[in-house]
Amino acid sequence: MNFYYSFFVVFSIAFSIHANAQEHPNLILTKSGVETIKKQLGTIPIFDTTLNKVKNAIDQEIASGIHVPIPKDMAGGYTHDRHKKNWITLQQAGVLYQLLADDKYAKYVHDVLKEYAKIYPTLPLHPQTRSYARGKIFWQCLNDSNWLVYVSQAYDCIYDYLSKKERDNLEKNLFIPYANFLSEGSPQFFNRIHNHSTWGNVAVGMIGLVMDNQELIDRALYGLKSDNIDPNQKDNDGGFIKTKGQKTGFLANLDEPFSPDGYYTEGPYYQRYAMYPFMIFAEALQNKKPELKIFEYKNGVLIKAVYALLNLTNANGEFFPLNDGQKGMSYYSRELVSAVNIAYHFGGNDPSLLSIAKQQNRIQLDDTGLSVALGIQQKKAKPFIKKSIELRDGSDGTQGSVGILRSKNQQFGLVMKYTAQGLSHGHYDKLSFSYYNKGNEILQDYGLARFVNIEQKNGGGYLKENKTWAKQSIAHNTIIQDEISHFEGKFKIGSTHHSEKYLFDVSNPKLQIVSAKEDNAYPGTNLHRTMLVLEDNDFENPLVIDVMQFKSKTTHQFDLPFYYNGQIIDTNFEYSSPETLTKVGEKNGYQHLWLEGKSILKEERTLQTTWKTNQTFYTLSTLAKQNDEFLFTRIGANDPNFNLRRDPSFLIRKPKQEEGVFISVVEAHGSYNYVTEIANNAHSNIKKITKNSTKNKNYVSWSILTKKDKKHTFVLCTTDSNNKTSHTITINGKPFSWVGPYTHNKEN
Amino acid sequence: MNFYYSFFVVFSIAFSIHANAQEHPNLILTKSGVETIKKQLGTIPIFDTTLNKVKNAIDQEIASGIHVPIPKDMAGGYTHDRHKKNWITLQQAGVLYQLLADDKYAKYVHDVLKEYAKIYPTLPLHPQTRSYARGKIFWQCLNDSNWLVYVSQAYDCIYDYLSKKERDNLEKNLFIPYANFLSEGSPQFFNRIHNHSTWGNVAVGMIGLVMDNQELIDRALYGLKSDNIDPNQKDNDGGFIKTKGQKTGFLANLDEPFSPDGYYTEGPYYQRYAMYPFMIFAEALQNKKPELKIFEYKNGVLIKAVYALLNLTNANGEFFPLNDGQKGMSYYSRELVSAVNIAYHFGGNDPSLLSIAKQQNRIQLDDTGLSVALGIQQKKAKPFIKKSIELRDGSDGTQGSVGILRSKNQQFGLVMKYTAQGLSHGHYDKLSFSYYNKGNEILQDYGLARFVNIEQKNGGGYLKENKTWAKQSIAHNTIIQDEISHFEGKFKIGSTHHSEKYLFDVSNPKLQIVSAKEDNAYPGTNLHRTMLVLEDNDFENPLVIDVMQFKSKTTHQFDLPFYYNGQIIDTNFEYSSPETLTKVGEKNGYQHLWLEGKSILKEERTLQTTWKTNQTFYTLSTLAKQNDEFLFTRIGANDPNFNLRRDPSFLIRKPKQEEGVFISVVEAHGSYNYVTEIANNAHSNIKKITKNSTKNKNYVSWSILTKKDKKHTFVLCTTDSNNKTSHTITINGKPFSWVGPYTHNKEN
Repeated sequence: MNFYYSFFVVFSIAFSIHANAQEHPNLILTKSGVETIKKQLGTIPIFDTTLNKVKNAIDQEIASGIHVPIPKDMAGGYTHDRHKKNWITLQQAGVLYQLLADDKYAKYVHDVLKEYAKIYPTLPLHPQTRSYARGKIFWQCLNDSNWLVYVSQAYDCIYDYLSKKERDNLEKNLFIPYANFLSEGSPQFFNRIHNHSTWGNVAVGMIGLVMDNQELIDRALYGLKSDNIDPNQKDNDGGFIKTKGQKTGFLANLDEPFSPDGYYTEGPYYQRYAMYPFMIFAEALQNKKPELKIFEYKNGVLIKAVYALLNLTNANGEFFPLNDGQKGMSYYSRELVSAVNIAYHFGGNDPSLLSIAKQQNRIQLDDTGLSVALGIQQKKAKPFIKKSIELRDGSDGTQGSVGILRSKNQQFGLVMKYTAQGLSHGHYDKLSFSYYNKGNEILQDYGLARFVNIEQKNGGGYLKENKTWAKQSIAHNTIIQDEISHFEGKFKIGSTHHSEKYLFDVSNPKLQIVSAKEDNAYPGTNLHRTMLVLEDNDFENPLVIDVMQFKSKTTHQFDLPFYYNGQIIDTNFEYSSPETLTKVGEKNGYQHLWLEGKSILKEERTLQTTWKTNQTFYTLSTLAKQNDEFLFTRIGANDPNFNLRRDPSFLIRKPKQEEGVFISVVEAHGSYNYVTEIANNAHSNIKKITKNSTKNKNYVSWSILTKKDKKHTFVLCTTDSNNKTSHTITINGKPFSWVGPYTHNKEN
Repeated sequence: MNFYYSFFVVFSIAFSIHANAQEHPNLILTKSGVETIKKQLGTIPIFDTTLNKVKNAIDQEIASGIHVPIPKDMAGGYTHDRHKKNWITLQQAGVLYQLLADDKYAKYVHDVLKEYAKIYPTLPLHPQTRSYARGKIFWQCLNDSNWLVYVSQAYDCIYDYLSKKERDNLEKNLFIPYANFLSEGSPQFFNRIHNHSTWGNVAVGMIGLVMDNQELIDRALYGLKSDNIDPNQKDNDGGFIKTKGQKTGFLANLDEPFSPDGYYTEGPYYQRYAMYPFMIFAEALQNKKPELKIFEYKNGVLIKAVYALLNLTNANGEFFPLNDGQKGMSYYSRELVSAVNIAYHFGGNDPSLLSIAKQQNRIQLDDTGLSVALGIQQKKAKPFIKKSIELRDGSDGTQGSVGILRSKNQQFGLVMKYTAQGLSHGHYDKLSFSYYNKGNEILQDYGLARFVNIEQKNGGGYLKENKTWAKQSIAHNTIIQDEISHFEGKFKIGSTHHSEKYLFDVSNPKLQIVSAKEDNAYPGTNLHRTMLVLEDNDFENPLVIDVMQFKSKTTHQFDLPFYYNGQIIDTNFEYSSPETLTKVGEKNGYQHLWLEGKSILKEERTLQTTWKTNQTFYTLSTLAKQNDEFLFTRIGANDPNFNLRRDPSFLIRKPKQEEGVFISVVEAHGSYNYVTEIANNAHSNIKKITKNSTKNKNYVSWSILTKKDKKHTFVLCTTDSNNKTSHTITINGKPFSWVGPYTHNKEN
């Protein structure tokens, strides 16, 4: 059997599988798939290796006995970790039973499930009371759902191994009450637009598919018909549970949080988390309900979502930590192994996905994993090229975007965020950006303030510093007015707005541009940020140019921080250094910053600071006016539990202004080698930044003068982004004419 | 010709080469060696790869023209970097001429040397006046010497290509005045015991050998006969130039700073630096003056020194930054490539050196490199096992030691320093230690305060913070009395003392011990530190046990800091957190520490702090008494130029005591995976540390109680380290009898 059928062939095969829908397994593994896999075993390295690893782990686990403790602990505690381990073990043991045809695995799954069936009927709510939706096995329904998504697969695998009586016992005492508890018993959890609900929907749907229980399947797909949720009720993260009249269920969770480009509004970290239930349920639906054509749903948004996620990573495959995201999470996670396998198998066998799968070096033990393993074995893999890309946010793609500019060599990546709020995991950082070089964070997004699953840190849950620091605007590389976060840091306000794309143009690889506006973060103030990546012989590496414009009806203080890493090498200006460290401000995150140094400008000039991260030098050049301030800050104030990293930043402050612009340039230059001790090109190549007078409020213009006196002049029209409009203005007495929203001119 | 001759065969071959001593090349490359290499070219991968890389680099360099600017700049500036580049280019071009027999390389070397010969006769001292021994080409004689060490080799390579007249021009206008300037013209530089002088001696000796100038050779080997150096004169690092009557020259520099174990008193970073001139001159002497038997000198100390250096590295091959040492320097440096090649060739063809050479992945382009390349090609490499080892300090090995304890799996390494001062690059850190896990610094030595060759940081030279911070005792994991550095931080005092080894016993791999005393750091105070590495089933990883005893005639404050890396996860005690950060002290390095938190003990207890570095958890448990203090500090106060890293430490303080002991345990435990988000074993396994009463001042005893109530009791006799002495004492009412200085007992 050739597994390299096209998207449409998949459907016809899926239909033929459907004809045998009553034969188990038929959820993720299929009867015919298992036969094919068995024939190939021992001949496909990556499949065999994964299978062996799983077998070793599960054999060890089975040998340790059966452990189904009465639930008691928070995340990181024994009962939590044990039940979590059980769900994986059960799912994998089920797969082993099918692929290796060894009854010991089926027996083990059955034995464990019997223990759960014994305790479940009388289990009260979990004793830990922290969640807005407490579970029974775990402290929150979310984890109970995780469990059922995996365990449904195990049940499907041993379904035919069990007698009817044995199945009746498990279904009556465990699976049906379990599914009812997660849905009807927990409407505030089940009937939402949120990754939590997706897990809940899929848990109920998966077990419904195994048991052929149409009522549960419908509940999963379309939500509960009634729920009586109070529209003012909030979850633990401060997000609203549900707005009135909102559709719910699995399909609604595909409709709403996913944009047409496959971007998930909560951000990549949670998209990764939700990807597993989305994709695994889609695979199950494709196997059992192909008439739903789930992979074609919303123009194939599920497959697009996998590509979106792969593009939302740095050179090491780590997700950009937009909104709440723990750094280090990457496409090496099991969710992405599964997603890439399913996207390859059901999404047209794109050979570039095989190069990601090769890096992942393991597969999902099913038909999709077999396809991938065979593709790799047959050397079909092609490089996955991450290009500059704009990923729109909002269910119809009109609620802003994430714009990613990458250098030609793929080493440099600039990520600018001008999205919607991102539900309860959203941060208040409109128009923020982060910047990477070869997988290193050069200008970082802080990420979340949480140590996931580390018990000592608040049971592994969100720390209060997530609210007081990580979500605040000052924790990001974006503009802050009067030391107040965007939308006053209020979810109710933030979640009704989004930024507006102005321009995203990557047609010229030598000068890429992203530009967006934000008019609601501060009522009465218009913000407009434009970022360019220039590749030019005058500079060793791509240059990041940042033009942050602001205009208000009244006078305010405007701050623009840059969170760098590493050691300051040099500055071209004087500053004062305090004898004692005091916090930069009183609230909205400022109370977490120490002030390490300060300069108040006596006259307009280009301020430069050079630092070194790992083995590369970087220089931030910024045009400052008289009375502007340059602050050296460091995170760590008001942090008695050492919950925050002691990371530094440069903070450029324009006090008391109505209107203005921050024009800054970030250069990566040179190198330092700790073995040869050779420092190359340790100095900035920029002499000066100037702002040019345009005498026309619809334009902004600036020039960058290099140390070799090459002058790069830029003009941007800020009111018309049409790329066919002609413009003519005079700058410094010189006429400029061009077509489209911006121009760049180089003089020697 | 078989290159795998033994140590003695080498000598006889060397003698036969000597017979043709007037034929060039005969310094590093030899006529017969070149013939052998030429025959093998194209057949030995690692040699060919290195040769190709060098050829490409030199071809590019030659194509760029000849650049011999009038000297002007400090390190990091153009003329400095250019002349530095020239020395390497010339040396390598010389080698290429010999190996590839292409006249273009000889012509290039000659052309460049002619330019030097033109400017040298009228060159004044270098205009930069910072050095105690200013050079002519560079700001310091040291770099001028570097130049001549390399360029002598180039001259030897093209010697026969030049006419007598051409040679006369170079010798008269360049080499002879150059050698005279470095020696007679700079006695304060040339006639010392110091790595500077070694470079100077070797520079003069190398050019002497090429020119067969016995006067220069003798000067190099035995120093200047008279120098008129003021015994109070100091160099830029604050070290004395010369004590009265001290022997000088190359051989004296082998005699004195090297211990019989091959440890170089300045520390590994400078030993690495000095290794090149030591080894390359030894190779030249072996080729031209085999009767000196230089590799047998002082019981083969040069070969031993190479092994010492390899053992003074962490799992990544990076040198322990004892004394002034820039972190990141490793055995991948060119000096160590050369040293390992020469040690392999002239030191008995030890196959374990080949595994280091394989990692280095390049060789020295001469006979020694050919030997290594052939050895690797013939798959003779064996692993280089780094074991626990004590390296004695002092010319006769009686001035203390560096003790290194490594775990069986080689992942954990504890380095304790109880050496002599280490000349002008020494730090005031008697009995200090550092601790590594898999190449990561767990408890770090700060290293130096310098950015070598980064011009913006004081021209790449030592920063004033090297004196105010890095050299001070508080910058190290050692005990400090009354916030004053050891020996008052005075070189004059420090350089007349060394610590005394008490015990170094690694015969039992399950319990290794190092112990040393220091009675001179604070007059009237006796310090005794004992560190143990215990490998036991009760603990996941080797346990570090640290027993720091102090006894004084009067009352003092004693501090013991631990410089960790990473993020604090948890503490088992309350502490206060200041609203503003103030410095911990006024001077001796304390002025550079911010106080981030403080606890004053109300009663005796075991204080525990858990932190995470990368993906591993660590816990420091320490027994504290009533009124003891636990401080959380961070480097960075009084550092307006951001010259210091913002690294944190725990500081345990015992105020107002005459006598006492710090008993601490460092555990490495568990792991955190950022992709699976699984935290394993995130908690310490230790419940309690207790000090046991021995009722005998000659013993110290303590117990460690695990959370599973396993009790490990230790007794150390502190006055008799004889391993045959029998001891019997009663502890907690229980009799203990054993033989040797210490015992360990485990109870369930």
